[in-house]
Amino acid sequence: MKTVTLAHGNGGQENNELISKVFYKAFKNEILEKSEDAAVIQDGTLAFSTDSFTVSPIEFAGADIGKLAVCGTCNDLAMMGAKPKYLTCSVIIEEGFEVETLKRIVNSMKIELEKNGAYVVSGDTKVVPRGSVDKIFINTTGIGEIKQKGISSNEILEDDVIIVSNSVGKHGATIFAAREGIDFSSSLESDCASLWPVVEKLIENGIKIRALRDATRGGVSAVLNEWAKQSNICVEIDEEKIPVTDEVNGVCEMLGFEALSLANEGTFVMAISKDQEEKAMDILKSIDTTKEAAIIGTVSSKHLGKVVLNSPWGTARFIDLPTGELLPRIC
Amino acid sequence: MKTVTLAHGNGGQENNELISKVFYKAFKNEILEKSEDAAVIQDGTLAFSTDSFTVSPIEFAGADIGKLAVCGTCNDLAMMGAKPKYLTCSVIIEEGFEVETLKRIVNSMKIELEKNGAYVVSGDTKVVPRGSVDKIFINTTGIGEIKQKGISSNEILEDDVIIVSNSVGKHGATIFAAREGIDFSSSLESDCASLWPVVEKLIENGIKIRALRDATRGGVSAVLNEWAKQSNICVEIDEEKIPVTDEVNGVCEMLGFEALSLANEGTFVMAISKDQEEKAMDILKSIDTTKEAAIIGTVSSKHLGKVVLNSPWGTARFIDLPTGELLPRIC
Repeated sequence: MKTVTLAHGNGGQENNELISKVFYKAFKNEILEKSEDAAVIQDGTLAFSTDSFTVSPIEFAGADIGKLAVCGTCNDLAMMGAKPKYLTCSVIIEEGFEVETLKRIVNSMKIELEKNGAYVVSGDTKVVPRGSVDKIFINTTGIGEIKQKGISSNEILEDDVIIVSNSVGKHGATIFAAREGIDFSSSLESDCASLWPVVEKLIENGIKIRALRDATRGGVSAVLNEWAKQSNICVEIDEEKIPVTDEVNGVCEMLGFEALSLANEGTFVMAISKDQEEKAMDILKSIDTTKEAAIIGTVSSKHLGKVVLNSPWGTARFIDLPTGELLPRIC
Repeated sequence: MKTVTLAHGNGGQENNELISKVFYKAFKNEILEKSEDAAVIQDGTLAFSTDSFTVSPIEFAGADIGKLAVCGTCNDLAMMGAKPKYLTCSVIIEEGFEVETLKRIVNSMKIELEKNGAYVVSGDTKVVPRGSVDKIFINTTGIGEIKQKGISSNEILEDDVIIVSNSVGKHGATIFAAREGIDFSSSLESDCASLWPVVEKLIENGIKIRALRDATRGGVSAVLNEWAKQSNICVEIDEEKIPVTDEVNGVCEMLGFEALSLANEGTFVMAISKDQEEKAMDILKSIDTTKEAAIIGTVSSKHLGKVVLNSPWGTARFIDLPTGELLPRIC
């Protein structure tokens, strides 16, 4: 590891290597090492999470970098059972950027903040010369109030069921299509959405969430692999149960990608105990954001630390943490 | 205002215009509108602040972008009387960046975190293709525990005294010299430093701080102008009392800049009541970071909302909020 490569930002194996060898090593502390979507601080009352957004193009079907920046950070808080409350917004803008475009982006942020009931309370604006940044990057960092404690990637149990909240890979497929100028003349658009309203409904209805994570860079594959390792379990997934749209399947065929490894921006993976699956699915199916939710697998002890994909023909294979250069600037 | 210009990032007048017309307008809320260095949240117990760092070059006399990123955000918290506690660290790295350089930068962050007694508890790492970012940008966002309440730019009183904690303009002068390849063969280096240990000592010794702000982009001029407007007071400064080193004066002559408008990264401006000035100065003079501290002026009602610079020859002029393109990528 002499220079940083695009693969180091893939949300997969090389990304984890860079983070652990450089950042975790220097910043060593108990909270950071839990590797959750958000840090739990102040005696378990608050969640705290950061994300920088560098997506290209900055406007695409279903969202723009502003909506993405609010959803991304609010979702990380929601994944710890926290209601998004306060956000900071820090923008780095390239000289010559259109003010009208900036206003559109900021307005997207405003709309999404309202869906979360959150406020931007601190900000920073930097303008850099042409060529120092490509158009605009946004960092959002958020504080949320934890409404359900104990959600963790480290305590998933055997026989828990694994649910995805939406058909997978829509954000990744949309960005790829936009970047390559592919016109599907179709309904393909990013799944980018705020997930707190969904999580709130689950909590209010008594669902005890074991683990919850939004499947961003590295997709569902990355989340399940991290869970398998962190909880020392085997996650078994049924290939035929994974919801994927025809459009996303089409992009995957062109890319040679697996939908399970494509990025999502409004889709979570949830582990809950089997006795709650019916109630949870009823709630998810009743909400527009999660109406394509599906139970995709269960937790076993067959191959500890591994994710197994069972095909409808009785064969099985391991799904690994994504490696190599996926799509840079996906989020 | 059709496109964003470098002047919109100057920490002065155009910067304020962009922030108020685009960001404040959309994100409208009471906390944001206070325009303090950090937002005060959770019933006045916590401070919350964000900053993105884009400085060029990334390593320079006295600091690097890592040290700057921790000092910058921790100082914003300290300026609200808050002890820095938790930080997030979000980096955007250009493909091909040297891992050894990254390790050096992260190590600078580590050293500075220790000085503040703060921890990085959440992070994000993005790698973008060559040309999408110049080397590395770092965002840090911090939460601090407020140890002295009521510090505010909005409540400075007549007869308060104005103190600067260090000779002014060293950071701005250093970056300019480094960028232009000027070798002063001198001791010119950035003032970049963590200010919480100084603020802690002031608080522990019973100093009641009225207003406190680190004089970053836009320098001391920007701070004093904002205070004059926010508190509706007149700040009168004595030119001969402003501490400026010969090296900084040299750079200012080349630039046609005023030292008062040059950026600092470890220098604060403080307003306190007159009866505390002696005690405060004794404390500041006893600490290495602030040994060049000086009382530079007082608060009057002569020209409300204005900053007046009195020369030793009995003349006086207004000092305005800096305008135009100062030095981009100064922090």
